[in-house]
Amino acid sequence: MALNDDDIALAGRLADAARTVIRPYFRAEHGLETKADDSPVTRADREAEAAMRRLIIAERPMDAIIGEEEGVREGSSGRSWVLDPIDGTRAFIAGRPIFGTLIALIEDGWPILGVIDQPILGERWLGATGRPTTLNGKPARTRACRALDQALLATTSPALFTDDQLHAFEHLDARVRSTVLGGDCYNYACLASGHLDIVVEAELKLHDFAALVPVVEGAGGRMCDWSGDPLHGDSKGEVIAAGDAARIDDILEALACRGH
Amino acid sequence: MALNDDDIALAGRLADAARTVIRPYFRAEHGLETKADDSPVTRADREAEAAMRRLIIAERPMDAIIGEEEGVREGSSGRSWVLDPIDGTRAFIAGRPIFGTLIALIEDGWPILGVIDQPILGERWLGATGRPTTLNGKPARTRACRALDQALLATTSPALFTDDQLHAFEHLDARVRSTVLGGDCYNYACLASGHLDIVVEAELKLHDFAALVPVVEGAGGRMCDWSGDPLHGDSKGEVIAAGDAARIDDILEALACRGH
Repeated sequence: MALNDDDIALAGRLADAARTVIRPYFRAEHGLETKADDSPVTRADREAEAAMRRLIIAERPMDAIIGEEEGVREGSSGRSWVLDPIDGTRAFIAGRPIFGTLIALIEDGWPILGVIDQPILGERWLGATGRPTTLNGKPARTRACRALDQALLATTSPALFTDDQLHAFEHLDARVRSTVLGGDCYNYACLASGHLDIVVEAELKLHDFAALVPVVEGAGGRMCDWSGDPLHGDSKGEVIAAGDAARIDDILEALACRGH
Repeated sequence: MALNDDDIALAGRLADAARTVIRPYFRAEHGLETKADDSPVTRADREAEAAMRRLIIAERPMDAIIGEEEGVREGSSGRSWVLDPIDGTRAFIAGRPIFGTLIALIEDGWPILGVIDQPILGERWLGATGRPTTLNGKPARTRACRALDQALLATTSPALFTDDQLHAFEHLDARVRSTVLGGDCYNYACLASGHLDIVVEAELKLHDFAALVPVVEGAGGRMCDWSGDPLHGDSKGEVIAAGDAARIDDILEALACRGH
């Protein structure tokens, strides 16, 4: 079963539903709680995921759902919708309009459709296998990057790395032109639109990275793990995005100093 | 000579002029260069500062000007306009709409007026001695924070700290609820609007912090250096902003572990 226009239309309605829930909570009282893993979650997260789940259950009752907040609903179609209602909850609660809603459709273990939606700015990046990535309907393209020392690198927080990962990241950081911190999924969106060259992160869950792959790759970039392997449902969360696929080997070489 | 409405009106025109220059450069080719200190600068920085300087020279020829890009123009009025056309140049070039134009008016060494302007989102925080801080004309207020372990802390990048400063920062970081990275001047704006509780940075220049003080303090917060002293023209750039002034002592105590 290949991707079709109905899938893309549904993804758009899911993002619309999440926007409707999230917007009134931005810079308002948002009932911040802390999850078991000590990460913050808000009522906006929970309610936005619930709104998306209701739509999927109504329209695609046989599809599975994997959501950050509510977990897994089994399906029988071989397809899974992967939802992160607010990627960058800390940015959201801090009042920064650069968090995002992530929606992915996975078939046979591979993400074939991805949405990065910024509800406050009204920006929606859409990537789908075999189609060019768009930002609000207009083509988005990564940019060329001739060498690592020309690259603008982003990562949300070095504190999310293990000691080994941090050592590897610092090696890469020392070779690029400049590095920006923070950003969450918005970094991958900016990379897809040609403003950033590299994003490197670790410990990402499926709901954090699945939507990013079609967006970045449909824009001309490439994503893989820290060993250079493609990202799939069982990847362990070490993520590289390169706007210029020709830089992947340089990035892998710089990260390889951690010793494997 | 006290602050008057003409000063506030001029600050608004300066921010308007910078916006007009900066907006077309956002997410466009921006002629990135690297300054002598290896920080990035763009044509947007240079042209926005030039536009503001022209206005000041025309309207206040006796006032001094201290600009990030063009340096000092001497004056004879005892007043100085302090300009940072794009605070957060890395965020700007990365396509994030959370950089800012900073405008301060200093009299007798103290900032009496400050503007944090976000040209893309059309957000303008204005602080002036003796007046409540506003965001687009509406009052902005910091929020209460009962204890450090409730606080949301921000800093642009731990890489900007010396080893001693980083050690102190990590001590504070371990005591707060949550920390977000990146953000530049936008962190102080979000603090003034009650979304963040603490911002701690170091190595800020006068043009980086002068505008922040009236914005934060007019919103009910407090700014000081890492010794608890008020920030003035000769401060050495170790900056604390607290939305709830009652937390300043806790912050100073946490940072004091660096040994002075």
